[in-house]
Amino acid sequence: MVRELMDHGLVVEAGRGASTGGKPRTLLRLNPGGRYAVGVLFERNLCVVVMVDLTGRQVARTSFPGTSLLPPEEALSQVAARVEDLIGAAGVERDKVLGVGLVTYGPQDRQAGVLLTHQPTADWYEYPVAPRLSELLGLPVLLDNDAAAAAIGEYWLGATRSNTFACVYMASGIGGGVVLDGEVYRGASSNGVEIGHVTVDLDGGPCDCGNYGCLANYADPHAMIKQAVATPSLGRLRLDPADPDVMTGFGRIASAAGAGDPAARALVERSARHLGTAAVTMMSLFDLDLIVLAGPSLAAAGPIYQSVVEEEVRRRTFARRAHPVRVVTSVSGSDAAAIGGAVLMLQSELTFLDLDVPG
Amino acid sequence: MVRELMDHGLVVEAGRGASTGGKPRTLLRLNPGGRYAVGVLFERNLCVVVMVDLTGRQVARTSFPGTSLLPPEEALSQVAARVEDLIGAAGVERDKVLGVGLVTYGPQDRQAGVLLTHQPTADWYEYPVAPRLSELLGLPVLLDNDAAAAAIGEYWLGATRSNTFACVYMASGIGGGVVLDGEVYRGASSNGVEIGHVTVDLDGGPCDCGNYGCLANYADPHAMIKQAVATPSLGRLRLDPADPDVMTGFGRIASAAGAGDPAARALVERSARHLGTAAVTMMSLFDLDLIVLAGPSLAAAGPIYQSVVEEEVRRRTFARRAHPVRVVTSVSGSDAAAIGGAVLMLQSELTFLDLDVPG
Repeated sequence: MVRELMDHGLVVEAGRGASTGGKPRTLLRLNPGGRYAVGVLFERNLCVVVMVDLTGRQVARTSFPGTSLLPPEEALSQVAARVEDLIGAAGVERDKVLGVGLVTYGPQDRQAGVLLTHQPTADWYEYPVAPRLSELLGLPVLLDNDAAAAAIGEYWLGATRSNTFACVYMASGIGGGVVLDGEVYRGASSNGVEIGHVTVDLDGGPCDCGNYGCLANYADPHAMIKQAVATPSLGRLRLDPADPDVMTGFGRIASAAGAGDPAARALVERSARHLGTAAVTMMSLFDLDLIVLAGPSLAAAGPIYQSVVEEEVRRRTFARRAHPVRVVTSVSGSDAAAIGGAVLMLQSELTFLDLDVPG
Repeated sequence: MVRELMDHGLVVEAGRGASTGGKPRTLLRLNPGGRYAVGVLFERNLCVVVMVDLTGRQVARTSFPGTSLLPPEEALSQVAARVEDLIGAAGVERDKVLGVGLVTYGPQDRQAGVLLTHQPTADWYEYPVAPRLSELLGLPVLLDNDAAAAAIGEYWLGATRSNTFACVYMASGIGGGVVLDGEVYRGASSNGVEIGHVTVDLDGGPCDCGNYGCLANYADPHAMIKQAVATPSLGRLRLDPADPDVMTGFGRIASAAGAGDPAARALVERSARHLGTAAVTMMSLFDLDLIVLAGPSLAAAGPIYQSVVEEEVRRRTFARRAHPVRVVTSVSGSDAAAIGGAVLMLQSELTFLDLDVPG
């Protein structure tokens, strides 16, 4: 079997070890350049493309502002071109690229690689996003949830020092991921841990997702832009609630809050308080002892969210007398989801490496 | 190994099978009377004690109205006496009783067998309920969550025809359990799936659990008694919001609703609607395709809760386009939690039977 792994260039000799009685042992290590995988965070406000080697180390990265409201065919062509560019620029032989982990919002039919959402436009509903990108690139493409991928990304990057934790993720929207014993929690269809779409207000209005009073409508970037527009002293931020680029708008609010603007800070703290309520719900259901705050929007205002969410969880979680819950911020800025996508592709294509090693 | 199991009376010969070339095979089966386990559902409004044999079949049962506000020492003495009576009446040799699975509300320190709640009185906080009952009975006692036990009980009773599902449980309070691949979901401390204590109202008042706007305060038996007392046409039910026996009070409301009283029916439907909101939250986080409604209070008004919760889940769950979610009612009336407690004790004491069988 070792012979076979060496023939495939996956492991290489790393010297000789001491003999344990017979002939000296040959030490082996993974060959970092033996294979590569690409991860793509794909959403209308931001796309991040990364390439990782066989050990999961990032070897190349690019990002662009997102595909906005482009129709699917054009958006995917743009993504495919960026992936091609990155492979070319990295100087990696194409037959060493295992494939692409494409991560984006849900709901999804993960097996079929199809989106089950009308967001951002109706064109995307049931669009075969993974098969189509696979066709364009001539590479295997798997589809996964961005927040689940961010959780695996944070784990892989060593942010968590624990193999069991929850991740709260905020980009254009709010999502979540749970990792149990190093594996993404999947449920029936990998459409779980959607903390942006839990009801926090019994009398709340309808959400685009079909539920009522969802957290997203009180705390996500779009909701905050609407709140900021209704706040006279924040007129100077020149926010437009009709602009689909909600992450840039949110970034302006977060910067103003960071610079000490009291009205902006109050808005961010309110969002964090509401996110804290949903984090308490997540902990009262999953009962874990670590929450990682990740994603580009949380990266933009990390310290405020971290302190407020931690305070809420410490005060309100059902199991708080059984064990504490730590809340930490991401180590990866905006990139955890894309890295997680690449790692999920490595794991998917290299499961034959998942061998039972005695003892 | 078979010899050892036979010596312990756990398996017995069940005849001879056809030869597959060598000598005829000896067929073995579990010896139902080889060992027994006791399950106790313990709460202030209702106690149920069951005994099951080695195959998990119920061989004896008793129940009593609960220990109300008795101090812990007296309450546990009463439970111990009932367990002794049941063992005696069943005519089971004491050394064949593996122990007791004691199931009740949380939060708990399950490992230590200690309650971490001030409910129903402050005396219970950090009271070593499992060690103390073990001392009284001279038998091993494990502590577990009532709703988690109900989930395992329903699974064991064959209610689910699936080994992965969620259980919503209502007795005096509201809880939940999740079973994944036949095992109770535990999280960090077995204090998860507490759907009675998820926030459904951002502006809601404080709950006894320390959180705010919890489902329990809108939908549990005590909340419904308060709502009924405030409803003039329900004065004839003679409900007293100060009476600790909330399950009897709730039972009167459920009976009136079942008999067609429009005001009572409106109250139960409102509770079911709110429970449906929390069930949607549970599904949007755990993403499962089956919910079992269990516990004595849901047994009392099952059809209304079943139809309303199913409607809410079908309309509102995030993954509804990926797969349907069925909602079914318990097959066990009030007993799933006690049976689950006994089954958890069997599993805990007989893990040496969990052997790798080739092929």
